[in-house]
Amino acid sequence: MAGGTATVMGVGGALGLIPSASAATVPNLMSLNGTQRKVVVLGGGISGLTTAYELTRAGYDVTVLEASHRCGGRVMTVRNGDLIDEIGNPQVCKFDAEPHMYFNCGAARIPSQHKHVLHYCRELGVELEIFINENKHALVHDPDLNGGKPMRNLDISTNLKGFMGELMHKGFTEAELDMPFTDEEAEKMLQVINAFGDLSSEGKYSGSFRAGYLSGGYLDHSVQKEMIDVRDLLKANFFMLRQTFLENEGETAPMLMQPVGGMDNIIKGFVRKLPGKIHYHAMVAGVHDHGDRVEIAYDQNGQRHKIEADYVFNCIPSHLMVGIDNNLPDDYINAMKGIRRGEAYKGAFQMKRRFWEDQDIYGGITWTNQDIRQIWYPFHGLMKPKGVVLAAYDYGGGMGFTRMTQEQRIEAMLASGEKVHPEYRDMAEHGITIAWHRMNHMLGCSARWGQMTPEKELNYELLRKPAGRHYFIGDQVTRHAAWMQSAILSAHYAMEQLDQRVRAEARA
Amino acid sequence: MAGGTATVMGVGGALGLIPSASAATVPNLMSLNGTQRKVVVLGGGISGLTTAYELTRAGYDVTVLEASHRCGGRVMTVRNGDLIDEIGNPQVCKFDAEPHMYFNCGAARIPSQHKHVLHYCRELGVELEIFINENKHALVHDPDLNGGKPMRNLDISTNLKGFMGELMHKGFTEAELDMPFTDEEAEKMLQVINAFGDLSSEGKYSGSFRAGYLSGGYLDHSVQKEMIDVRDLLKANFFMLRQTFLENEGETAPMLMQPVGGMDNIIKGFVRKLPGKIHYHAMVAGVHDHGDRVEIAYDQNGQRHKIEADYVFNCIPSHLMVGIDNNLPDDYINAMKGIRRGEAYKGAFQMKRRFWEDQDIYGGITWTNQDIRQIWYPFHGLMKPKGVVLAAYDYGGGMGFTRMTQEQRIEAMLASGEKVHPEYRDMAEHGITIAWHRMNHMLGCSARWGQMTPEKELNYELLRKPAGRHYFIGDQVTRHAAWMQSAILSAHYAMEQLDQRVRAEARA
Repeated sequence: MAGGTATVMGVGGALGLIPSASAATVPNLMSLNGTQRKVVVLGGGISGLTTAYELTRAGYDVTVLEASHRCGGRVMTVRNGDLIDEIGNPQVCKFDAEPHMYFNCGAARIPSQHKHVLHYCRELGVELEIFINENKHALVHDPDLNGGKPMRNLDISTNLKGFMGELMHKGFTEAELDMPFTDEEAEKMLQVINAFGDLSSEGKYSGSFRAGYLSGGYLDHSVQKEMIDVRDLLKANFFMLRQTFLENEGETAPMLMQPVGGMDNIIKGFVRKLPGKIHYHAMVAGVHDHGDRVEIAYDQNGQRHKIEADYVFNCIPSHLMVGIDNNLPDDYINAMKGIRRGEAYKGAFQMKRRFWEDQDIYGGITWTNQDIRQIWYPFHGLMKPKGVVLAAYDYGGGMGFTRMTQEQRIEAMLASGEKVHPEYRDMAEHGITIAWHRMNHMLGCSARWGQMTPEKELNYELLRKPAGRHYFIGDQVTRHAAWMQSAILSAHYAMEQLDQRVRAEARA
Repeated sequence: MAGGTATVMGVGGALGLIPSASAATVPNLMSLNGTQRKVVVLGGGISGLTTAYELTRAGYDVTVLEASHRCGGRVMTVRNGDLIDEIGNPQVCKFDAEPHMYFNCGAARIPSQHKHVLHYCRELGVELEIFINENKHALVHDPDLNGGKPMRNLDISTNLKGFMGELMHKGFTEAELDMPFTDEEAEKMLQVINAFGDLSSEGKYSGSFRAGYLSGGYLDHSVQKEMIDVRDLLKANFFMLRQTFLENEGETAPMLMQPVGGMDNIIKGFVRKLPGKIHYHAMVAGVHDHGDRVEIAYDQNGQRHKIEADYVFNCIPSHLMVGIDNNLPDDYINAMKGIRRGEAYKGAFQMKRRFWEDQDIYGGITWTNQDIRQIWYPFHGLMKPKGVVLAAYDYGGGMGFTRMTQEQRIEAMLASGEKVHPEYRDMAEHGITIAWHRMNHMLGCSARWGQMTPEKELNYELLRKPAGRHYFIGDQVTRHAAWMQSAILSAHYAMEQLDQRVRAEARA
């Protein structure tokens, strides 16, 4: 769940953060040149598929065991006819069967600095397009703000920045006393402040054309909108106000991308490269390391199967893995038990008409402090009549939706949506919902390590090293969960350790 | 020239401004139902083509006279084999013949609120994609900043915002004395300020992960970059610093779009709808209103031609029109003489490799205070090996480039570019340049009315009304020059006046 349940260890986790750029290198694995080595990958999430893809290329004999009917884990896109396998609430997507009518149920955003995701998109021929996260033309809705009538993000941010500019202008005099600014520096800083807030040269804000014209502009004399008193804006809750500054917000700040046609095109790309190697509906029932080999038991079509391998790479969610029969070391299993899982809920509607474009909204997010929290408008399908709108995205928090029946969820999304767009209920059809903590074979969203303690640091180090022939992978064993980039890097890290071992054996 | 030479009358023109949204209505012209009315359109710019398209639909007999070998005026895209008809410096574009290898020489950005441009894209089947203007991963280069080494926009803006946050935090105490904030409002405002600057709860800035990690982040413990002293940032000139806040800047703030494959796809769309109606290489030599009809003289292939019509719609640049034989009223011609023209220069290279993507730059603008001013990186063609980079975009100012030979221009662009990207010179090939004030049949960029005086207001009103059977159109007769939206609306305005006249005649 992009951004949502990210836990960043060692730093405050509330904001999306930008890890430093590094070259998109992939492990330089020693080619096996015919030496037989068998690897079983448990779970067809993106870390498992990355492993299967790279090890196959290096000459390993790889089998992937995937419990579900599909690969991808939380990289999941639904289109016409696709199953959402939520326990007790299975749904089949009824969107029109058109390429732009899809919904990314899980991962939905690729920050441009996530080089390794981009690397695999390139390698697998996955076409990318720009994803718009913040759109100043989208709306902010708060019952306490503007009498409950939605406001344009731009109206809030422009006026808030005007007030902020005034504060800075005032604060600068005081700051100058503390800091040795030259006249030139001081003058330049005041220019920056005035430009930031669109202030007069005296540092006064009186509204700004940046929020648009009240009338005129192209052919007729332009009339400026009235300025909005900051105290009126402060009626909104803090979270809503913060959303008008998303240009700051690290990982979800521009530039973001998405695959054309759905995020799972990355998964499909991997799957195409692994013909015959993936077993679906294969539920792992045992993991036993016998020292010289590892034995995996799995159930498929009511039958118990066994498979032996030299190594196992495991991206099964830790909270499920600890309930599977195994002989992994106690401290290792204990470390897995310490990882909590996030909850996340998303919903979507097919919209009969792209009504949001009537309001100059092309892509981006409307924020509301109702339980749906977000409405995402698709840019893709611009010239088409319909579009799929994300109608709710809630992570952490109350998760009220998941205590509702499907019908209640749909009604709640409609009731919330129509407070933002009066035409919402009439436009919406074929609603779908997904609660990741109720999804079959998943039962949770991304890993949450929480604030790192010395004990957790030890557990983290333990889990990222192999236990015998067992390698633990996935975003669950990274410091930046909930991003595909992390899952991919966890696989690379584990493979590099395997490679060192294999090279050492070759030298021996 | 999107944004560049925009003159906004009645308000400060330095910033791109957002005129208010209005429905994308087109003139509801009375259908002529076989009544013969002949209209000659002078100039195949986007205002002329809009006129020809709408009047043809309403049953008028339309002929477009275009002086050049192509329609579009300043909506111009060059690809392999295309001519840049600059006087004394004709060039043929040698970019690879691939769909993504094009250069928008003029208009390059469509703000999402420019509804009428979007309307015609929809009507003409022009596919649109997102255009990235500001990219925080792109660079800022200033010889006085960071020892002349380019810095990431994000590093500047994050640290500048941190300092700004501190100023606000300080200024807030003072502001509170003047304004009756409740405790709750004050608390919320401080939260917003702290979130804006990424400050501690005490209002202190000490660097931010928003600028990226120095190391770690995904698998290893994250290390924060050191904060940058605001005085080091203030070594850059004001214009460079302002570019790190482009998210504020009205018309060039997100969301922006561009046609897939080049801006002139809009022009091609109009031209497809006007088969046989456009005469190329047809240079207007006389415009005479005889009261009951208008007579147009034009030269084509060395021959003088005459054409009579009921009405003439004229988007010839005013500074050229005043030199063409005519019998338009003196005050009308005098008003045209008052409109000045902007100058603008652009250059581009084909790049052998998309080296900017190595630095996580996907689209957007690098700013430099060298004469080239801007480097634009294409997002389009993401997975392809090469791309066309805008290598210079200078408007107003010194225009030093246009006093150079073509070879000198190319060398200057290379010398400037390699100060930003060391590999620039090795990567660049097939450079092209365009100086709009030297372009054949154009001799100027967009109209500049300057600050409006009462006399200019009268002239503006005079020119937007017909003079007899002559209607003056183009962005030159709008309050928001340099945007396609304005040019289109000028045509709509003129056609609505024609329609009133025709309806009145029908009633008479």
